[in-house]
Formats: sequence, C-alpha cells, structure tokens
Amino acid sequence: MVEFPRLFPRRLRPGDTVAVVAPSGPVDPARLERGKEVLKGLGLDVIVGSRVLGRERFLAGPDSARVVDLQAAWCDPAVSAVICARGGYGATRLLEPLDWDAMRAAGPKILLGSSDITALHRAFARELGVATLFGPMPACSLLGAPEGPEPETLSRLRAALFEGGSAGPIRGDRVLVPGRAEGPVGGGNLSLLAALCGTPYGFRADGHIVLLEDVGEQPYRIDRMLTQLLQAGSLDGAAGFALGSWVGCGDPDDVLAVLTDRLAPLGVPIVAGLPVGHGSPQFSLWMEADGVIDTQSCSMTGLFRDPEGAP
Amino acid sequence: MVEFPRLFPRRLRPGDTVAVVAPSGPVDPARLERGKEVLKGLGLDVIVGSRVLGRERFLAGPDSARVVDLQAAWCDPAVSAVICARGGYGATRLLEPLDWDAMRAAGPKILLGSSDITALHRAFARELGVATLFGPMPACSLLGAPEGPEPETLSRLRAALFEGGSAGPIRGDRVLVPGRAEGPVGGGNLSLLAALCGTPYGFRADGHIVLLEDVGEQPYRIDRMLTQLLQAGSLDGAAGFALGSWVGCGDPDDVLAVLTDRLAPLGVPIVAGLPVGHGSPQFSLWMEADGVIDTQSCSMTGLFRDPEGAP
Repeated sequence: MVEFPRLFPRRLRPGDTVAVVAPSGPVDPARLERGKEVLKGLGLDVIVGSRVLGRERFLAGPDSARVVDLQAAWCDPAVSAVICARGGYGATRLLEPLDWDAMRAAGPKILLGSSDITALHRAFARELGVATLFGPMPACSLLGAPEGPEPETLSRLRAALFEGGSAGPIRGDRVLVPGRAEGPVGGGNLSLLAALCGTPYGFRADGHIVLLEDVGEQPYRIDRMLTQLLQAGSLDGAAGFALGSWVGCGDPDDVLAVLTDRLAPLGVPIVAGLPVGHGSPQFSLWMEADGVIDTQSCSMTGLFRDPEGAP
Repeated sequence: MVEFPRLFPRRLRPGDTVAVVAPSGPVDPARLERGKEVLKGLGLDVIVGSRVLGRERFLAGPDSARVVDLQAAWCDPAVSAVICARGGYGATRLLEPLDWDAMRAAGPKILLGSSDITALHRAFARELGVATLFGPMPACSLLGAPEGPEPETLSRLRAALFEGGSAGPIRGDRVLVPGRAEGPVGGGNLSLLAALCGTPYGFRADGHIVLLEDVGEQPYRIDRMLTQLLQAGSLDGAAGFALGSWVGCGDPDDVLAVLTDRLAPLGVPIVAGLPVGHGSPQFSLWMEADGVIDTQSCSMTGLFRDPEGAP
C-alpha cells in the first residue's frame, strides 16, 4: 500500500496505444464502436480487451474475465492508458482479486473512468499511489452518442490526456462556503465512496479537496451517504469540497440543502455546480493531482505534474 | 459499549404504558391514529411523543427534537416499551447525539421497529447490550391500514411483546444452503447495515444468525451492499443467514441469484423467504435473542429469555 509519494503517469502523445476494458456493467457494442472512433480521432491507437462485450447479469462478464482484461491492459508495456468503457456496477468486486503487486511492477500509466470506476480510482491511489483521470468514458452517451461526441467534453478530455491539468479552471455555479483551498484531489462518486466505507479501500480525506457527485440518488439517500462518510471519519481533514453534478437526484434545491446541512459545518471552502460527474458537458479531473478551489471565481483548477516536468 | 452480556427487557403485561416516537421519517397522522388504536387494542396505555408529527424535509423534524423524544421515552420509568412510528430515513443521524450513558442508566426496556430502525437496533445492541424487537410499526401499512391491522402480523407482534419468542417457527420458502445453526440474531435491513459500515455502529456477525431484508433496491445494489459487508468483514463468523422479504427489488430470481452468489460461499446455513421485513405478513423477531435456523423445516425460531425466567 502506497498512498504517497504520488506517481504521475506520462501524458499521452499521438500514436500512443490505449486499451479499452469493462470492469463494471455490460457495454453496448454500437456505442463502444462510436466511442472507439472518437479515441482514434484523438490520434490514438485503440485496442479493446477481448472480454469487453461479456455479459453476466448486471456485470460485463464474470469477475475473473473482467480482472484479466483490466490487469492485462495495465501490465502491457505497449499500453499507455487503460480506458474504462463505462460504469454501471461491478468495480468493487474486482478490488480483492486484482494482483496489485503485478500492477505496481508495471509502473504508472493513465487510468480513465468515472462513476462506478471511483472504486478503481480509490484502489489505484491506495495500492499504486498513482494519479488517475476522472472523466468521460467511450461507451457512455457523451463520447459514444450517434450524433458524435459532446464538443466541450471531448476538448477537456483531450487536454487532460495530452496536456495534463484541467485545461483552465472548471467553473461552478454556487459557493456554499467561501474560501480558497489547495490539496490533492480525491473523492468521486458518492455512492461508491459510501460503498467503500469500512473496507480496505475506504476514502480518507486527509488534506484532499473532495470531489462529490452522483446520479439517480434521492436527497435522503445523499444525506444517508454523507452521514456515513462523516461518522466513518472519511471526511476528516478535508481541505475543501468540489461538488459536481447531481443528475436525477430530485429537486436540486433539496440536494443543495442536504449538501449544505451535512458539509458546511466542516468549515472548509465548498464550490458547487461543477460540470464533473454525470451531466453534460463532463469535464475531466485528475485525481491525486494538485487542485485549487477558489470561491471568488467559483472555480476549481486541477494541476497535473508529470514526470517530464511540463508545467 | 457493551455487546455482552445481553440484557433482556421485561415482557409486556396488559396495562403497561408504551411510548410512540418518530426517529426517522415524517409520520402520517391518520395512520398513526389507527396504529395507536391497534396498540390500545392490545391492552396497552399508549402515549405519543410530543414531537412525533414534526416534519423537516424527509425527516420527522430536526435531529434535536427526534433525539429528545426518543431519549425521554426510553428514560421515562413509566414507559415499558418505546415503539417507533415508522421508518423512512433519519435514525443514523441520531446515533451520535443520543446520550447513551443516560439511556444505559434507565435500564432495559423494549424497543420496537424495523427498516431504518435497524440503525437503532445496532446502536442499542452496541451501547446498551439490550435485545430489541424487529417488527411492524404503528404508522405503517400493516398495523395502521384503514381496513384494520393485518391479522397474522398483529398476532405475531402480540406474542413477541407479551410472551417473548417468535410464537412458533417462522417458515421460509427456500433453502440456499442446508444445515442447522444457533446463535443470537443480528442484522436487519441491508441498506442500513451497509450505511453503518465503517462507523462505530458497524455490524459484526461474530456468531450471529444474520437477518437480511430490504425494499426497493435493485439486484445490483444488493450485490454492492453485500460486497461491502463482505469486504468490511461484517459477515465474518456468521452462524447462518435468515433472509426476509425483498419487496420491490426487481425479479425475485435475480435477487436470489445475488444472495446465493455472495452468501453461499460462506458455507453456513441459509433460509430464504422468511416473512420478515417489508412484505405481508410481517413477523416480529427479537434481535440479540437466541435464534435457531433449521433448513430441514425451512424455518427460523427466535427464543427469548426474559429476566423473569419464563421459557
């Protein structure tokens, strides 16, 4: 287990090979095909895990197959980034079977995904100490739509993959608690952070700027999950909160009331309404990279330090 | 904190006073009135907490008011049983503010409730070491319906309150893993057990027969919650599983497949389809009392030991 020092993967260059895998729910083939073309359009060579179209109930095939694809991609020296096809559910089931020693030995590279993939972000931070990219996935609607990718989502993803950083500040629409905070970025999808509580992969805020977002969770459930994180000590030492989208979570005012009620007493800066999570556009954010919250500009900036020393 | 020795409250007698409180969600006044009459029909004097009809968003009033009512009822020497009006959400928010020392000093009495009240069952077991009753609540549909209480639900509740035990075996409809197991009964609503993971009130199976039930949770969510309990070690040492109702959780076969996939590898007896939880009828089950699972008769029996030494 290495939480620190944090390792930063090399930024992508045109011609790099990336591998698409499915650690969570079943993947729609047509959508995946379109998302793959979008990745190719970024100048990348795209290989697809051999089991990416598996299906077993709500999973993209049995755990063993999903583990093999993810691990093989990560350990393949020809692969510069492992890109999750979509979320759904299933990543938490892989955390124990994955061979973390082998993956650590393979060295840092890029992991891209969001939503259910929060479980992998957490585990990669804990086990590999590597910065990972929370962002859009090729077999999801924003990249894999029939009408083409959502432009701002794609341009932010391109910037994050090829240039690092967040390509300029990410602006929110509401300040819940004013102030300025710096720290590595952590957190992710709230349901997943709650589902990791009590497990070896439970989140610890300790100095992090905590991203929180979710989809399809009623306000009382958001309250229950935040209460769990608070009671579990997961939010102790949070430097600030970066609140993303809450799509399909009921009345936005009710959601804001819950977020304010549970988080404002912690007394650290909180920016809300960031286009990160499940809305459109969906900006990319480097986890474990340095982040800055500035409520004067109601924004968040992610600063990527890569091994090549680029700014 | 006292997990052992377990304390058993005195069984009720006609003429005893019981107090209805609302630790969780808002209460419907008409339904509460009907449920109160049902309790009176059992020969009980019923008092109602002064804040039971409070409402604040999805809660039955602010935390402070819900804490005061619950604590006042528990600490009132004239009250023999504290009966939760209904579940919903909100009990986990009370676990830290409650004055457990004062409640411990008040001595054991009966706590009745289910669903969200699982949080109180867990906390009462941990902090007070007292056996509590998982069963129907007065402002819920089975006791508070306009057409009168569901007869079997009421007769089982009467037996549990006045005679202890489960009034004969509770029969299930499916054996997932055969065998016989004995142990104190623990567990409750799966969502609440998951929501307590990582908190001081997290469940530890250690020799318990584990009741699990839920309402309105899709199979992938049940899978995620069971995976969390497994990864958190909450199910280590389980003596067996007593699976209750899974109302509104999608295709029952899918639910059974998830329960089997996650729990059968533990290798302990599992009975499914017990009428405990959210279905109709809803049997009452003493938590922390001695339970027996017998898959030959596909049943579970709860054995209550009370301080008066009745069998």
